[in-house]
Amino acid sequence: MRLATVLHESATRAARVEGNELVLLPAKDLRELLQHADWRKRAAANGQRQPLDLAKVAPPVPAPDKILCLGLNFREHIAEAKRQIPEFPALFAKFPGSLTSARGPIVLPHRTVSVQNDWEIELCVVVQGRVRNADPEQARQHIAGFTISNDISVRDWQARNPTVLTGKVWESSTPVGPWMTTPDELGDMASLELVCEVDGQVVQRGLVGDMVFAAEDVISYASAFITLEPGDLILMGTPAGTAMGRTPSPWLRPGQKVTSRISKLGELVNECVEGPAPATQRWLTKKKEPQTS
Amino acid sequence: MRLATVLHESATRAARVEGNELVLLPAKDLRELLQHADWRKRAAANGQRQPLDLAKVAPPVPAPDKILCLGLNFREHIAEAKRQIPEFPALFAKFPGSLTSARGPIVLPHRTVSVQNDWEIELCVVVQGRVRNADPEQARQHIAGFTISNDISVRDWQARNPTVLTGKVWESSTPVGPWMTTPDELGDMASLELVCEVDGQVVQRGLVGDMVFAAEDVISYASAFITLEPGDLILMGTPAGTAMGRTPSPWLRPGQKVTSRISKLGELVNECVEGPAPATQRWLTKKKEPQTS
Repeated sequence: MRLATVLHESATRAARVEGNELVLLPAKDLRELLQHADWRKRAAANGQRQPLDLAKVAPPVPAPDKILCLGLNFREHIAEAKRQIPEFPALFAKFPGSLTSARGPIVLPHRTVSVQNDWEIELCVVVQGRVRNADPEQARQHIAGFTISNDISVRDWQARNPTVLTGKVWESSTPVGPWMTTPDELGDMASLELVCEVDGQVVQRGLVGDMVFAAEDVISYASAFITLEPGDLILMGTPAGTAMGRTPSPWLRPGQKVTSRISKLGELVNECVEGPAPATQRWLTKKKEPQTS
Repeated sequence: MRLATVLHESATRAARVEGNELVLLPAKDLRELLQHADWRKRAAANGQRQPLDLAKVAPPVPAPDKILCLGLNFREHIAEAKRQIPEFPALFAKFPGSLTSARGPIVLPHRTVSVQNDWEIELCVVVQGRVRNADPEQARQHIAGFTISNDISVRDWQARNPTVLTGKVWESSTPVGPWMTTPDELGDMASLELVCEVDGQVVQRGLVGDMVFAAEDVISYASAFITLEPGDLILMGTPAGTAMGRTPSPWLRPGQKVTSRISKLGELVNECVEGPAPATQRWLTKKKEPQTS
């Protein structure tokens, strides 16, 4: 089953995707739908049909309670970033306002603020049910489904502090979507391929099987310290091939098109645009910062 | 004006605090109240009065859109942690579920998971209006008020990754409250004193004037990359005196009472309790980790 949140009559609605059609569901978005224990039954119900218009697809969960992200989770990317395989998932957070849709613009910083804009295609997990203190086997039952994301990163701002947050949460910079696919449609996850293209040229290619921590590991880990809620998102880290890992770094520029594709999950197609001018020079980077991942 | 969110008839309500009385306001919490441009007028209105019962005070904003926290912002604490004064605010995030109330329990990890529990009294800023690309002077107009928080930190989990998140977001570990006080009641902020006590013994004492970045600086900085929303919280970092900075470290234990007091803002009084047992041994710390701030 493929489930989306779509723009409909100046609001959002949950919907099932069937080929080129949508079936509208009685919930304002996927988070509200997932709050029902019988969400699978509700999601399979009949409803008003209309053509699928990808321009009107919102992020599957437009306002999650939590967005967790892994920093270093693909072995080839860890090597590229010259880092060690972490003993525990390296987690940071994003905010709902950081998200954008499957065809929405990726808003880069104004050119006077940063030009070090990088791509990071990522598998994104959607949580179902409330989860606290689950072992990985229990945690697996709390995977509602998977979608695609791109953790666009502003590298010089990311490197300002080891917490990385300020490079990762720029407004409308992280596309997610186009829909969530339930695990029963995916078979062996390890063979799913992630491909990121910039202006039609492949820049990242990796396999889900290269991940150090699987979705159920990260749900289990996070549930050791906090209750995960229905609709929470987990971005699972990126494969090798980032701009940061190349010399010179081919940073993303306004006007470029980023395509993020994962086998069986569809694709994101987002144009980069330039964000608003800063209000003050005070927060600009004064000198070359060392780059970290 | 002092504004709180209180438990009332199995829900929450915004309320004005007047001495030992509450005046109930027509909003479910302070975040909803702050979403109105005329919130100051609404907050000053008449309403049903009832005695103030501190046991029924919720966090002022129980579910903020964003919780931003500063890692290193008091000069004496930076020295204690043997770190440099940061050029930019060192930001990380918390989740709504990490918060607890002014008299609620602080839930520490189960003893088999961690015993490295530390206190960090902090000034907490509440945002009003929507803020994007504000300079510090404009940002100052977006301070709704101030309250008290304690950024209880699980040091070995914090040290697992430089992103610090996993030490900072434990469920029901961060008390906030008891109410928000508007800036007009506070006069010169620099002379406000922060005091943290454990079982009646002073462990931290610092002045707001020792902060590297003021509230308006951090609002301005964050607004360079994302829109701050009404009710967003910013925890402003902690003064010196943490357990981490002492040898041996007198970690917090279940049964201990933490009092967090800031001049003119009231006080938090929270008992430490032990959290639930883990579901798996997989995520336990295997060896002594180096401690970082």
